[in-house]
Amino acid sequence: MLMRELIVTTLRLARRIFMASDTVFDLVIHNGTILTVNDDFDIVRQGTLCIQNGRIAAISVHEPGEQPPPAKATIDAGGGIVMPGLVNTHTHLPMSMFRGLADDRPLMEWLKETIFPAEAAHVHPETVFRATQLACAEMILSGTTTCCDGYFLENSVARAVQLSGMRAVLGQGVIDYPAPGVPDPARNIAHAARFVETWRNADPLITPAVFCHSPYTCSRETLTKAKALARSQGILFQIHAAETRTERDLFLREHGVTPIRYLDGLGLLDAGTLLVHAVWTDETDIRRISAGGAVISHNPESNMKLASGIAPVEKFLAAGIPVGLGTDGCASNNNLDLFQEMDTAAKLHKVNTLDPTVMDARTVIRMATAMGARAIGLGGVVGTLEIGSQADVIIIDTGKPHMTPLYHPASQIVYTAKASDVRTVVVAGKVIMADGRILTLDLAEILAEVRKIARRINKRQP
Amino acid sequence: MLMRELIVTTLRLARRIFMASDTVFDLVIHNGTILTVNDDFDIVRQGTLCIQNGRIAAISVHEPGEQPPPAKATIDAGGGIVMPGLVNTHTHLPMSMFRGLADDRPLMEWLKETIFPAEAAHVHPETVFRATQLACAEMILSGTTTCCDGYFLENSVARAVQLSGMRAVLGQGVIDYPAPGVPDPARNIAHAARFVETWRNADPLITPAVFCHSPYTCSRETLTKAKALARSQGILFQIHAAETRTERDLFLREHGVTPIRYLDGLGLLDAGTLLVHAVWTDETDIRRISAGGAVISHNPESNMKLASGIAPVEKFLAAGIPVGLGTDGCASNNNLDLFQEMDTAAKLHKVNTLDPTVMDARTVIRMATAMGARAIGLGGVVGTLEIGSQADVIIIDTGKPHMTPLYHPASQIVYTAKASDVRTVVVAGKVIMADGRILTLDLAEILAEVRKIARRINKRQP
Repeated sequence: MLMRELIVTTLRLARRIFMASDTVFDLVIHNGTILTVNDDFDIVRQGTLCIQNGRIAAISVHEPGEQPPPAKATIDAGGGIVMPGLVNTHTHLPMSMFRGLADDRPLMEWLKETIFPAEAAHVHPETVFRATQLACAEMILSGTTTCCDGYFLENSVARAVQLSGMRAVLGQGVIDYPAPGVPDPARNIAHAARFVETWRNADPLITPAVFCHSPYTCSRETLTKAKALARSQGILFQIHAAETRTERDLFLREHGVTPIRYLDGLGLLDAGTLLVHAVWTDETDIRRISAGGAVISHNPESNMKLASGIAPVEKFLAAGIPVGLGTDGCASNNNLDLFQEMDTAAKLHKVNTLDPTVMDARTVIRMATAMGARAIGLGGVVGTLEIGSQADVIIIDTGKPHMTPLYHPASQIVYTAKASDVRTVVVAGKVIMADGRILTLDLAEILAEVRKIARRINKRQP
Repeated sequence: MLMRELIVTTLRLARRIFMASDTVFDLVIHNGTILTVNDDFDIVRQGTLCIQNGRIAAISVHEPGEQPPPAKATIDAGGGIVMPGLVNTHTHLPMSMFRGLADDRPLMEWLKETIFPAEAAHVHPETVFRATQLACAEMILSGTTTCCDGYFLENSVARAVQLSGMRAVLGQGVIDYPAPGVPDPARNIAHAARFVETWRNADPLITPAVFCHSPYTCSRETLTKAKALARSQGILFQIHAAETRTERDLFLREHGVTPIRYLDGLGLLDAGTLLVHAVWTDETDIRRISAGGAVISHNPESNMKLASGIAPVEKFLAAGIPVGLGTDGCASNNNLDLFQEMDTAAKLHKVNTLDPTVMDARTVIRMATAMGARAIGLGGVVGTLEIGSQADVIIIDTGKPHMTPLYHPASQIVYTAKASDVRTVVVAGKVIMADGRILTLDLAEILAEVRKIARRINKRQP
């Protein structure tokens, strides 16, 4: 508790200084329980959060009867929970147009008979733009402020994300097959490089990245070149790896090593590589990942629904590997809801290890915030509520029956809170959702446009 | 589709007859996609559901431009999904007062250091009544119309459920230890018998039952007498069984048989016995359950969170054993949300078997409706929308971003819909929730009272 006292004292002083110099904050959120998700997981009850120039300027305890500090805008959290916006470390946003198109089928049949033909026929810049807008709406409404995406036609994804006011790390897809917008695979790295160039300094909320599809769909040369591009630009290199047993067996058969050791052999496991899934990983793989400095995106619901397997997350964490949470695309989950993903992640690993103490609520919240931010290269920027960090903040309504009683805020967030409890969303100090209403997007228009696309995909869509 | 045509034709005729004779229905729900959850899983698009005397009187297809049939009250489903109210086959409603009091701890430590002392100190008729009201509010808001409960002081539970307008099967707890309201275990069967007597014909929505805690907390004599009571009254006998590996090992060590074979040896596996959990069951256990006629309540989230294990549900279903879904109590889940439970159930067994085709969406919906109703003795009464069945109906809003697009209603319900999408709840033809507002309970008063109880349990509750 010492740290908390310190923080609170410092902040109270800070505010006095601000107030003495007639500081008027841009935004003040008061009357909430603040989950800082800092290293000590300090929780500030009756807290006030002050925002200036898009960053957190002060956090203080509200004294009884005291007015909130002067500000251009003030939000009463109504006794709710104030916490960092959630970070989704793996999405394919445009695939929201295929949500629920086919389920409960074997992976290869699902890919070959439904997803690939649907992508070939319906993925264009305009459909990607609209479906990404839909995905942004779903993410904002469910408290996600940052996502890490990988898809093709990522330029259209970036335009849609930009309009939504969300923060994102976006990777143009690299694959050795013809893909939407990249008909000639020989040009895949060039396309990725152009995307990075376009978005390098275009918007402070958008960070370009490289998304290599997987070690089984990209050659050694493609993998190495894509990583070299990421390294030269100092940006994130994302790759699906060790997702299914089939993939693991393929590498053992064809290369004599696991997918992770194959990537290690190519020198790809350094810091700046985000391994997505990492389900079929053994002790040696984990040591290599840890030694190299690569990080992991864990997508439990996608791994469950596609029957891929259960990643040894408790071992990753024990080895000191940062692990973020991800939902994966809407075609394989079928939602972008990190509240449900937190709950499932906590429960899945308890039952898988037969140990109820693994993946406690605080660890899971860190995965969905601070550790997730670190995994996608935004550590220290977002994911915590601390002085100087970007003001990406959500407010959770704790007044509903399923949130009552409320003994421990962290437990309540993981095991009880729902996406629909998010009332307010702030990104870089700007309110983008208030009282459940998105302020940045025309929701009715987006829903109507996506329904038109869906009717072209399948006439049964009403 | 032949069956669907037949139903629709029959119903259209039925309505014409009603209309010809100037029938005015009590309630008509129109402009929805009706999931009947009948044997053929017929889905009626642009459907109209007509209710008379608390039962479903007609289902028809809406012709373009046609007015809904005359009715005392009409609800426009707004293009949403109309389906049977959900059936929660295992709850301990009053434990909502302990929601999130302690988590992420070993089972025995959790029980002995937190739950048992809290129950001893705080479980009284008044707290049970209030906490049950809270649980009913949560269930109604999340689309559950029927639950099957087991606790002590069940008379207070019954009074609270009755006021909520929900339907329930309620079992007074039987255990060979002093329990709230039953200080002398020698009187446990007598207490249960009196509860059954009190509620036998008191309310058409409440069906009394017997809830034996478990084979390890009740003697052979208690188990046999409790089952005899249930048999003599023709009511449900509920029992926790084979929940943990510790329990299974205890029976192997002390009795030389598994918990299920122990119960079989006492003649307790006949129809009318609801085995709750049944996690640690082998092939022989499954054959015995199937041969005896007993049924199962599957509680995946509780089994995951407490790290109990994964029940072989796909084998139960293959053996023809009816399996219902349950949430368990709020101390071990920590919610009563069957939408999340459906999603988790579908995904957990896919990953556990590494087969994405098991537990498809329709099967999971049946478990949460028709099969669940059958498991608690209400088969044919609730759980489907068919002519003559009780009008327990919910309407799901399909207009939100996470519900768009909508290709397959069953998939959308399991993998995408949330508790917060439930707009309307009808039980026995009576609307008990409209537009997200509960009509039967004073929510503000209930929340205030439960917060008072929670502050006595733990001062940290705000």
